Amino acid sequence: MEKFLEEAKSGSRILSAISGSDKNRILKEMAGALRSKSSELLEANAVDMSDAHKNKLTSALKDRLLLDESRIDAMAVAIEEIAALKEPVGRVLDGWVTEDGLKIEKVSIPIGVIGIIYESRPNVTSDTAALCFKSSNVCVLKGGKEAENSNRAIAKVLQGVLAKNDLPTSLVSLLEDSSREGVAKLIKMDKYVDLIIPRGGAGLIKYVSENATVSVVKHDKGQCHTYIDKDAKLDNAIAIAINAKVQRPGVCNAMETLLVDRAISSLALPQLKKEFDKAHTELKGCLETQAIIEVKHANDKDYDTEYLANILNIKVVDGVEGAIEHIIRFGSGHSESIITEDITTAEKFLNAIDSACVYVNASTRFTDGGAFGFGAEVGISTNKLHARGPMGIEGLTTYKFKIYGSGQIR
Amino acid sequence: MEKFLEEAKSGSRILSAISGSDKNRILKEMAGALRSKSSELLEANAVDMSDAHKNKLTSALKDRLLLDESRIDAMAVAIEEIAALKEPVGRVLDGWVTEDGLKIEKVSIPIGVIGIIYESRPNVTSDTAALCFKSSNVCVLKGGKEAENSNRAIAKVLQGVLAKNDLPTSLVSLLEDSSREGVAKLIKMDKYVDLIIPRGGAGLIKYVSENATVSVVKHDKGQCHTYIDKDAKLDNAIAIAINAKVQRPGVCNAMETLLVDRAISSLALPQLKKEFDKAHTELKGCLETQAIIEVKHANDKDYDTEYLANILNIKVVDGVEGAIEHIIRFGSGHSESIITEDITTAEKFLNAIDSACVYVNASTRFTDGGAFGFGAEVGISTNKLHARGPMGIEGLTTYKFKIYGSGQIR
Repeated sequence: MEKFLEEAKSGSRILSAISGSDKNRILKEMAGALRSKSSELLEANAVDMSDAHKNKLTSALKDRLLLDESRIDAMAVAIEEIAALKEPVGRVLDGWVTEDGLKIEKVSIPIGVIGIIYESRPNVTSDTAALCFKSSNVCVLKGGKEAENSNRAIAKVLQGVLAKNDLPTSLVSLLEDSSREGVAKLIKMDKYVDLIIPRGGAGLIKYVSENATVSVVKHDKGQCHTYIDKDAKLDNAIAIAINAKVQRPGVCNAMETLLVDRAISSLALPQLKKEFDKAHTELKGCLETQAIIEVKHANDKDYDTEYLANILNIKVVDGVEGAIEHIIRFGSGHSESIITEDITTAEKFLNAIDSACVYVNASTRFTDGGAFGFGAEVGISTNKLHARGPMGIEGLTTYKFKIYGSGQIR
Repeated sequence: MEKFLEEAKSGSRILSAISGSDKNRILKEMAGALRSKSSELLEANAVDMSDAHKNKLTSALKDRLLLDESRIDAMAVAIEEIAALKEPVGRVLDGWVTEDGLKIEKVSIPIGVIGIIYESRPNVTSDTAALCFKSSNVCVLKGGKEAENSNRAIAKVLQGVLAKNDLPTSLVSLLEDSSREGVAKLIKMDKYVDLIIPRGGAGLIKYVSENATVSVVKHDKGQCHTYIDKDAKLDNAIAIAINAKVQRPGVCNAMETLLVDRAISSLALPQLKKEFDKAHTELKGCLETQAIIEVKHANDKDYDTEYLANILNIKVVDGVEGAIEHIIRFGSGHSESIITEDITTAEKFLNAIDSACVYVNASTRFTDGGAFGFGAEVGISTNKLHARGPMGIEGLTTYKFKIYGSGQIR
C-alpha cells in the first residue's frame, strides 16, 4: 500500500499545476466517457447485483447498489455541474500589510491527498473523484466490497480520461483492498494522506476515529430535534414537524425527537397525533405525552436512537430551557429547530444550542449542501473543526499564507 | 478525571453566556490579582526552582522556569492585551439568503473545552487561560511536573477571581495529574474535550497524535528553509539568511537549511561564510558547498534535523526547481523563503511549496502571531486543517450556521 500511496502523493504536485480550464475540460470528458461506456458499467454492476442476490442483501441495499442508464446519466450530469462550480483553489481569502511592510495573502489551496471510505452507492465513486479533481486533491477511494466491480469499472473510465490527457491515473486512486485491514492501514498513513472522510455506519466511523493518525472529517449520526414553543404558530409547527420526520425518514437531517412545550402540549399533541397517524408514523412518548395521547413509551435509549425510519419520540418539556437541556443531553450536534414567533426565545435557543445548524421556523431537512446553495456536497460534517454541517467543495480546501517582502529582517 | 472534565464541560455553557464586557472586566481583575499576589507566586516558584536544582535541570530550562517581579508583571500585561482584543465570538463570518428564502448566518462560536499540554514556562498557564477565557472556551491546563507549584499558584489566583465573580473555578481547570497516564486519559476524553493543543517535545507530540481521539492542533517542528536564487539581490540575501539563522536560533521559525542556486554559488558562498563566521554559526555543507568553502559535511540526516541552535546546513541546488525538490523532501510544512527579484521564479516557489507560510524576500522569523498582527498567539500550528501557521485567538473559535425561516418545509 505504501508504494500506491506514494504515487498518489506525488500526483498531488502534478494536479496542483493544472489550470482551472483544463480541469473543467477533463471533467467534461469524464462525464462524456461515463455515458459512452455505460454498457461496460452496467455489465460490471450486474456482477455486483448477482452477488448481492446470492448474499441476500436487503432490497434497500440492492436498490442503492443498482445502476441503470438513467443513474449513469445522473452521474455524468453531477460531474458537469461540478465542472461548472467556481474555481475553489487560489482564492484570496484575506490580505493585509503588516507594520513591517510585509504584504500577507491568505490563499486557498488543496488539502493534498484525501481518502474516502464509503459503502454501497457506486455514484459516490464518480461524485467524489470529480469533487476532489475540481479542488486539485488526489483522491484515494475505498468503496465497499459489495460494489467492488461497479467501482472498479467507474474508476477505470475516469482513469482512462486522465491517461488520454497524459496525467497519472493515480490522481483518481482506487484502493482494491476491501478488507478491514485495508482501512486500518490507510488511516495510519499520515505520511501520504492528509484527510480521511469516512461515510458509513456508526461502527466504521467509531473505528476510524479511534485509530486514525490522519485527520478525520466525520459524517456521523444525526440525532435531530424540533422544539415547538408555546409561542409557535401551530399550523407552522405541525407542517414543519411532519416534514422533518416524514418527507424522507432515512436521512441524517430527519427529526428523531419532537419536543413540545408543556404550556401547549394538551392543545398541540392531539393535532400532531392526527397528522402523524395519517403519515403512518410510529409514535413513542414520555409519560406526560402518554397522559394526553395514546402512544408507546419512550425511554432514554429511544431518545438516543437515530431511527432513520418513520418512528418518532415525543417529549413534553418545560419551555425553551427544558428543550435546551434535552438537546444538550441527547443531541449529536447536527441540526435542531425551534418553532416560535417570540424573538427572545428564538435567540436563546439559537445561542445555547451548539449544533452545526440551528433553525428557527424551518425544517431540519434543509441541512444539505444543495439547499444551502453550495452546489455539490462532499457530505455533512459532524466535526467541530475544519468543516461543520453541509460540506461544500470549499471543505476540500485549506489555506496557506503567501508573504511578500522587500528584504525585511527581524 | 471524568468527574473533573464533566464539570469543565458544564462550565462551557455558563462561560458562553458571559458578555464581552464582563469577560474583559474579569480579565483585567485577573491581571491585577497576579500583580497583587506576586509574593505567593514567587514563593511557589522558589519550590520549583529548588527542585530544578536538585534534579540538575539545565540552566536553559531553569531560566524558562524562573519567575521574578518583572516576569509576573509581563504576565499581567499579556492578559490586559488579551482583554483589549476584539470580541472573537459571535462574529458573522458569512451570510446569505437561499432560494427557499432561508436567511443563513455563519457565526463564530467557542470550540468548547480545550486541553493544553505544555512544559516549563509558567507564563503559558496565565496566557492560555486568558486566551481561552476571552474566546469563551473552558481550558484544561496540563503543565509539566517541573513547574507544578508555580502553575498551581497561578491557577489559584485566576480561579480566585472567577470565584469572586460567582463563576465556577472549573472555567480555568488545572489537571493535577502530571503523569504520562494523565495525558493518556485526557486525549481520549472526546466526550468532554473538543480540542487538544500539545506544546512540547517531538516525543509528546508524536504520542498525542497517535493516541488521541480528541482533535489535535499540533505545534510541531519547524524545519525551515531559505533559498537564494540566482536573481537575488545578494546583500538582501545575506542579511535575510543571517537573520533567519542567527537572531534567535532556538525557535521554530529559525532557518535550519540554506539552499543556494548553483548559478551563484561560487560568488555567494564565500560572502555568506564570512558573515556566518562573524556570527559563530557552525556550518555544514553538501559536496558542492565543500568544494567552494571549508565546512563540515552535511548528510540527509542533517537536512532532517531541527537544530534549534546556531548550526546551519548549506546545499547547492539546481535553481528554483532544485530548491522545491529539497523542500518537498525535507520540509516540515512550517515556513520557507525565496530570495529573488524575478517575479516568475518567486510565484513558482510560492505556488509549489505547500508550507503554512511561504515568503519572498523576507526572513522566516516573521512567522509569529505578533508579527502577523494577530495580537496574542496560541501557538504556531503545523496542522494542515483548522488553523495553519500563526494561530491567533480566531484559531480558538469554530462556527455554526444559524438559519432563520418562516415556515419552510421541503
